[in-house]
Amino acid sequence: MPSSTRSSIGIDFGGTFVKIGVCRGDEILALDEPIATPNFREPSALIDEMARRVQGLRSRFQDIDAVGVGVPGLVDFSQGFVHELTNVPGWKHVPLKTILQDRIGLPVTVENDANAMVWAEYRHGAARGLRDVVALTLGTGIGGGLVLDGRLHRGASCAAGEIGQMSIDWQGRSGHYGNLGALEKYTGNREITEHAALRYEQAGQHRLASQCSPRDLAQAAAAGDPIARQIWEEVADWLGTAMASIAWLLNPNAFVIGGGVAQAGDLIFQPLRRRVQSMLSTVVWERLQILPARFNNEAGIVGNAALALDQLEGAAH
Amino acid sequence: MPSSTRSSIGIDFGGTFVKIGVCRGDEILALDEPIATPNFREPSALIDEMARRVQGLRSRFQDIDAVGVGVPGLVDFSQGFVHELTNVPGWKHVPLKTILQDRIGLPVTVENDANAMVWAEYRHGAARGLRDVVALTLGTGIGGGLVLDGRLHRGASCAAGEIGQMSIDWQGRSGHYGNLGALEKYTGNREITEHAALRYEQAGQHRLASQCSPRDLAQAAAAGDPIARQIWEEVADWLGTAMASIAWLLNPNAFVIGGGVAQAGDLIFQPLRRRVQSMLSTVVWERLQILPARFNNEAGIVGNAALALDQLEGAAH
Repeated sequence: MPSSTRSSIGIDFGGTFVKIGVCRGDEILALDEPIATPNFREPSALIDEMARRVQGLRSRFQDIDAVGVGVPGLVDFSQGFVHELTNVPGWKHVPLKTILQDRIGLPVTVENDANAMVWAEYRHGAARGLRDVVALTLGTGIGGGLVLDGRLHRGASCAAGEIGQMSIDWQGRSGHYGNLGALEKYTGNREITEHAALRYEQAGQHRLASQCSPRDLAQAAAAGDPIARQIWEEVADWLGTAMASIAWLLNPNAFVIGGGVAQAGDLIFQPLRRRVQSMLSTVVWERLQILPARFNNEAGIVGNAALALDQLEGAAH
Repeated sequence: MPSSTRSSIGIDFGGTFVKIGVCRGDEILALDEPIATPNFREPSALIDEMARRVQGLRSRFQDIDAVGVGVPGLVDFSQGFVHELTNVPGWKHVPLKTILQDRIGLPVTVENDANAMVWAEYRHGAARGLRDVVALTLGTGIGGGLVLDGRLHRGASCAAGEIGQMSIDWQGRSGHYGNLGALEKYTGNREITEHAALRYEQAGQHRLASQCSPRDLAQAAAAGDPIARQIWEEVADWLGTAMASIAWLLNPNAFVIGGGVAQAGDLIFQPLRRRVQSMLSTVVWERLQILPARFNNEAGIVGNAALALDQLEGAAH
């Protein structure tokens, strides 16, 4: 049976909430109440709660074939083993797939959240029908996921896609790992805010950092503020440099961009396309699209639900 | 029959010479006299000569199953169609695979030379047994090839692997396409030479550029010259920055480095390993090897011969 007519459950496990939904293709048939992650101190208690929710949804939807869980951290997909989660205390060395599968009696996949995001866009979103897709999520940090030749590229230790750690300046700002020029030290939400406060200061216009969030800057630029517009050009220069390097290396069909900064729409997409084009050959540029993500808060649910079904069918490698 | 016991012909088509050899596995059973490329003005005349050489070798080796040709430029692997060759006049829109196959009656593959090089190292060389491999060739320019999850990654327009065009400085030196910070504007042979002449000048030691080739610098550094050693550290900083970015993005098992600069051995490999390690997380670094290429001048012959056989068996995607 083609996956478009089958149903599965997607679980998007975040540091604040665990979100759960039933999906069929790109459609979310039902969304359960989110689980507040910090209410469950032990992995086993949280897994119990996930299993309880899954069984509740199965009593309403009889034809669910698989469950996919996305987690914010390092996971071995083939084993469904969680090595460590960045912002969730206690989650270290947890064989999540095995435990959850035993509890619910359905096939389970466990994937990194950025990989689930690119899979959602590749299977059902902005990059549907393309073979080589690079997804970026812009937020506090910058995450990424790669679909290459129609398959998720996970890398030697399931750690691929760390676009925020790539360097745009060999002598630049030091990243979390001492990596000079780390992109997210330029285009992370906090760094954009600090840079904007500085630019306003330099222009003799004092603004608190709390008035310089990417959202504030998008509104100001839309209203014609030249300093805000200049800041978006600078963000495009930084982000576009990393994207051009990725394009030279991978020659992808598309970049799909999600997350807070992407909400600035044309304010960021127009200068970004200009910058990337200015750095590429015609051969690489003419096959490349730079697209806003279709899914935002739902990417985890849709992507993990799709991965779980595709794994059943041997299509998600 | 496993490919290790079968024979094939590899053709390495360069701007100066066309080199031809018979291979079985990692072994070159025979090397033919090179053909001087500029002696053949028309593609058809050069293809005739290739076909003649192939038939000559087949009269000596009866068990040849396939022929692989590597070309210096843009090629569509699935069609074996040469779009354009960088340094060979007249080679534009040539259906090389179709013509050569008709002439010799054997299956033919046509691949880009950097892809053939990474395939040689992946199948029979330094990266044998690894799944995710990035190869770099350091010369006038910097070429690259990618094997990801055991398959050649060619990209949307068969143009992937252009590592020399990746940026190491968003405000840096302008590359061939106007791409700021292009790696090969720092670590190409000519750029290393010019940089070295400048460093000697700054130290009050006048040297002609002709005394500052990478080979000269390797000899000087080996003899203890502190300026030459500093130059290799700088080359490692530039090259290592790009390699660290690739490692964050792809999380590969290995980099394999070939070409002239790589001949400097530990002088370049030691500072390079230090720089790359200093820019990575433990998770990414501990699975990563930085290896000298096994094949140098023979990479094209071995890689194309292997690709041709693997394609017969459906293993070279």
